[in-house]
Amino acid sequence: MTASSLDILGIGNAIVDVISRADDGFLAARGMHKGGMALISTEEAEALYAAMGPGVESSGGSVANSCAVAAGLGARVGFLGKVAADPLGQVFGHDIRAAGVHFPTAPLAGGAPTARCLILVSPDGQRTMNTYLGACVTFGEEDVDAAEIARAQVVYLEGYLFDPPAAQAAFRAAARAAHAAGRKVALSLSDPFCVGRHRDAFRAFVREECDILFANEAEILSLYEAPDFAAAQAAARADVQIAALTRSEKGSVIVAGAETHEVASTPTEVLDTTGAGDAYAGGFLAAHTRGLPLAVAGSWGSACAAEVISHFGPRPQRDLKTLVGA
Amino acid sequence: MTASSLDILGIGNAIVDVISRADDGFLAARGMHKGGMALISTEEAEALYAAMGPGVESSGGSVANSCAVAAGLGARVGFLGKVAADPLGQVFGHDIRAAGVHFPTAPLAGGAPTARCLILVSPDGQRTMNTYLGACVTFGEEDVDAAEIARAQVVYLEGYLFDPPAAQAAFRAAARAAHAAGRKVALSLSDPFCVGRHRDAFRAFVREECDILFANEAEILSLYEAPDFAAAQAAARADVQIAALTRSEKGSVIVAGAETHEVASTPTEVLDTTGAGDAYAGGFLAAHTRGLPLAVAGSWGSACAAEVISHFGPRPQRDLKTLVGA
Repeated sequence: MTASSLDILGIGNAIVDVISRADDGFLAARGMHKGGMALISTEEAEALYAAMGPGVESSGGSVANSCAVAAGLGARVGFLGKVAADPLGQVFGHDIRAAGVHFPTAPLAGGAPTARCLILVSPDGQRTMNTYLGACVTFGEEDVDAAEIARAQVVYLEGYLFDPPAAQAAFRAAARAAHAAGRKVALSLSDPFCVGRHRDAFRAFVREECDILFANEAEILSLYEAPDFAAAQAAARADVQIAALTRSEKGSVIVAGAETHEVASTPTEVLDTTGAGDAYAGGFLAAHTRGLPLAVAGSWGSACAAEVISHFGPRPQRDLKTLVGA
Repeated sequence: MTASSLDILGIGNAIVDVISRADDGFLAARGMHKGGMALISTEEAEALYAAMGPGVESSGGSVANSCAVAAGLGARVGFLGKVAADPLGQVFGHDIRAAGVHFPTAPLAGGAPTARCLILVSPDGQRTMNTYLGACVTFGEEDVDAAEIARAQVVYLEGYLFDPPAAQAAFRAAARAAHAAGRKVALSLSDPFCVGRHRDAFRAFVREECDILFANEAEILSLYEAPDFAAAQAAARADVQIAALTRSEKGSVIVAGAETHEVASTPTEVLDTTGAGDAYAGGFLAAHTRGLPLAVAGSWGSACAAEVISHFGPRPQRDLKTLVGA
């Protein structure tokens, strides 16, 4: 095994977010699960956009957000994901490269447009996501470059990739390639409903291929159909080397073999929770791949999550190195 | 004169903002005036975007921002301004209509694209703007609908419209139409360099056509080439019925005939000053057209300015009625 020239290679959906405030009545009238992510068609996206309030646009995508955070903390980061050759694809490419992330995936020409996520932020700051996957559904095994994977300490995958079938195949190929090169595989479960749609496949993947697992309380309960958080924590401890389990304002619990670390959340005004888990994972992985202790990795995660929930949009707007004292 | 069915009709450049952090060295290396607005070409816009950090996109435009704020406070508002029939034009149209603003101007088909403003936010929160006017240069007298103007209590114009020659003509036509219908004309000076480019024309317009003037300290000093703020204040008092002069964290001074009101700023963390003056004017005009006292109008302005400078982007992200107790 040669020395790694990247700390983290992320693979995920390449999405531009459109973020707007909405009250809970707006969600209820449209049958949306508050706090969840639903896949929508082009027509549904157009109708929802017409009904939504004024928006702010920001590059998004779960693992892409984590990559931007980790790069902001000084990690060497790459990202693989599919945009279209259109204006939103240019915005996504600009933003991730400007964050310092290596982004080699060729854009899709002449097919579906760049993916969009229409995000409704409730008065309490909770976000509800409606994703039109667009060009993301064409991301496949041919976009997974084994040489890129072999040069990264950790390959980081998002559970959302289980939804597009070609991406799920690419995801499995990436994990195999990482382990063949002696690298680690990290996974975010992404969403409790996504876990519910693919529970058996997720459980097998976590047990067989995952070294570092990120999940919030709802996701880890859904994965193991566990009666309580303690039971879910025990199951994760048995399955993976490191599990970082986030619990919103209650902070996070990191379990790793015999070790357990409880990490506080960083207090802040909550304006929009979009990207909180992504920022936590980005901060955690930046510290972990730098060789810092797990408790420090958790505290970097907490600090980055607090930064992104204090404003609209999932990408950091302050200098993260200053924030964590890196 | 019939009763007005609109409180405010704004006329201004229709722009989408791209906002990014940059240190002062980045500005200095490119010869930018920190805090100012410069007009740039397509090629300059492309080169600057490539060099800029990760961005957040939001609808912008000075008077358009004010209109969104005033509508958020319950005022009946219309806006005239030119976008192109392209994706950014759709974003602008969506956002202003979703804010509750009547926006009848037809988009430009087959010409220049929708205007963009590339905004660099310094670590101290100050913003430096680089505007590519695109479709805005085609806004002209034919877009000024006299019936729309006649039905609004106040027509609100931005000084930036003095830059595109066709818009300057439209601007003058709008003021004449408003006065012919017995309505008021409000003006924002927009930018000290813009005032410097067109000083004589601005002075004549303020004296002859303007009833309500908005300016910050640098702009009012530039307009009158005054030695100090007291002298500028006296000149404004002589020229217009109401002048609301903003002084950043020092608050604002409202002069109106024999009246003088000093209004405090609303304390907040400053993340991005983009749109501070626009939000002040929007809050002020919403209160003033509702018949509230000038000091209350100033305090609504301060509260709205504080909201928009606490986050990236010039449009409000919190509920403004709650904020001012309206």
